[in-house]
Amino acid sequence: MIRLIGFDADDTLWHNEIVYREAKGALGQLLARFADPLQTHEQLNRNELRNVGVYGYGIKSFTFSMLETAVEISRGGLTSADIETILGLGRAMLQRDVEPIAHVGETLAALAAATPLALLTKGDLAEQTRKISRSGWAELFRYVQVVADKTLSVYRDFLAQANVSPADFLMVGNSLRSDILPVLELGGQAAYIPHPLTWDHESAAMPSADNSRFHLLSGILDVLPLVASLTSRGP
Amino acid sequence: MIRLIGFDADDTLWHNEIVYREAKGALGQLLARFADPLQTHEQLNRNELRNVGVYGYGIKSFTFSMLETAVEISRGGLTSADIETILGLGRAMLQRDVEPIAHVGETLAALAAATPLALLTKGDLAEQTRKISRSGWAELFRYVQVVADKTLSVYRDFLAQANVSPADFLMVGNSLRSDILPVLELGGQAAYIPHPLTWDHESAAMPSADNSRFHLLSGILDVLPLVASLTSRGP
Repeated sequence: MIRLIGFDADDTLWHNEIVYREAKGALGQLLARFADPLQTHEQLNRNELRNVGVYGYGIKSFTFSMLETAVEISRGGLTSADIETILGLGRAMLQRDVEPIAHVGETLAALAAATPLALLTKGDLAEQTRKISRSGWAELFRYVQVVADKTLSVYRDFLAQANVSPADFLMVGNSLRSDILPVLELGGQAAYIPHPLTWDHESAAMPSADNSRFHLLSGILDVLPLVASLTSRGP
Repeated sequence: MIRLIGFDADDTLWHNEIVYREAKGALGQLLARFADPLQTHEQLNRNELRNVGVYGYGIKSFTFSMLETAVEISRGGLTSADIETILGLGRAMLQRDVEPIAHVGETLAALAAATPLALLTKGDLAEQTRKISRSGWAELFRYVQVVADKTLSVYRDFLAQANVSPADFLMVGNSLRSDILPVLELGGQAAYIPHPLTWDHESAAMPSADNSRFHLLSGILDVLPLVASLTSRGP
């Protein structure tokens, strides 16, 4: 019996990674007078991973990574105009419209009619709050939590607070590391919907195929029959 | 009867504004070759207030304000070394040790023995999570919530979730705007502990002196007798 369905947000409900890829392309072009864009991308990727530990997740952290990369790549040749351009890239990312993934709205509405939904996303509080509010779907979720990271203990505390046993919880998301593995380990059901663009940082080994609580789906519409089958099964 | 006590974090449990004041001083010195530090401070304050709406609260948002101010004040004369210095100021703020306000640890421990405590702070998720974890006080709080803003509806939703009536809730903090006024409006008890350094953005008119649910305290130790008197009062 599924008594609560959790959803990841970025690249599960709306597109996100594409916004970062586009900014990376623009930074590569801006710094092309100093270095090959490929070199800029590699340096940026290194800074980005390191900066998760310093600044956390999200666009602000990424903007600092772009600034650091620019300082490094330019070897002292950066101008005030470059800085303004990079700050502008970050602001444009922050203010961009939410781009929903196909069929998300109808799927959430159909599910919410029968089962409480939770939005569980890591990232920057200001950014995620803005996207949730702009999506128009906030009312469909009984719980909305922006957390610093999605670990086993974060899921355990959340479910205790919601008074739902892990066995009655289904998590849906595009990150094996954040959405799938910790929930399986806790004893919950997990539906993995791969997104063509997923940040390398989120990759992990696939769970073993004989785990009956792991479900590989091709799109969000598949959550509806999955929940129906899990519900008819038990308890 | 007080069934739940909420605490603000920055400048209620630990010092915070002083960290910003020191960075402002350092930025004024860095840009002194372009402008009088007073002019830099005024420009920075304007950018800071505007950027709350763009980047949210916290040190990352403030670092962007320092960068923008530097670009503006320098009129194109900024160097890569200046950018590195400003990014370094922001990182040093993020990595700074938590500096507890006197008597906070003992007061929290004494209160937690009898009444559940909640930490309710706005700001940046990564920053506040780090400070809470470093404070050593995380275990004393039954609830820890980092929220985008502390409005009446945020308090109402939180108390509904905790299943506590506003009349049985006491909020303690140094911001009239965020900690005191919305809680009084909701029907709760509010203890205001002014901090000598409080960000202008948090100021607001004092509640009227005849509001018996408003308590002006001179320090955190005063919360203990206040809770005792509110509890002995009834019902």
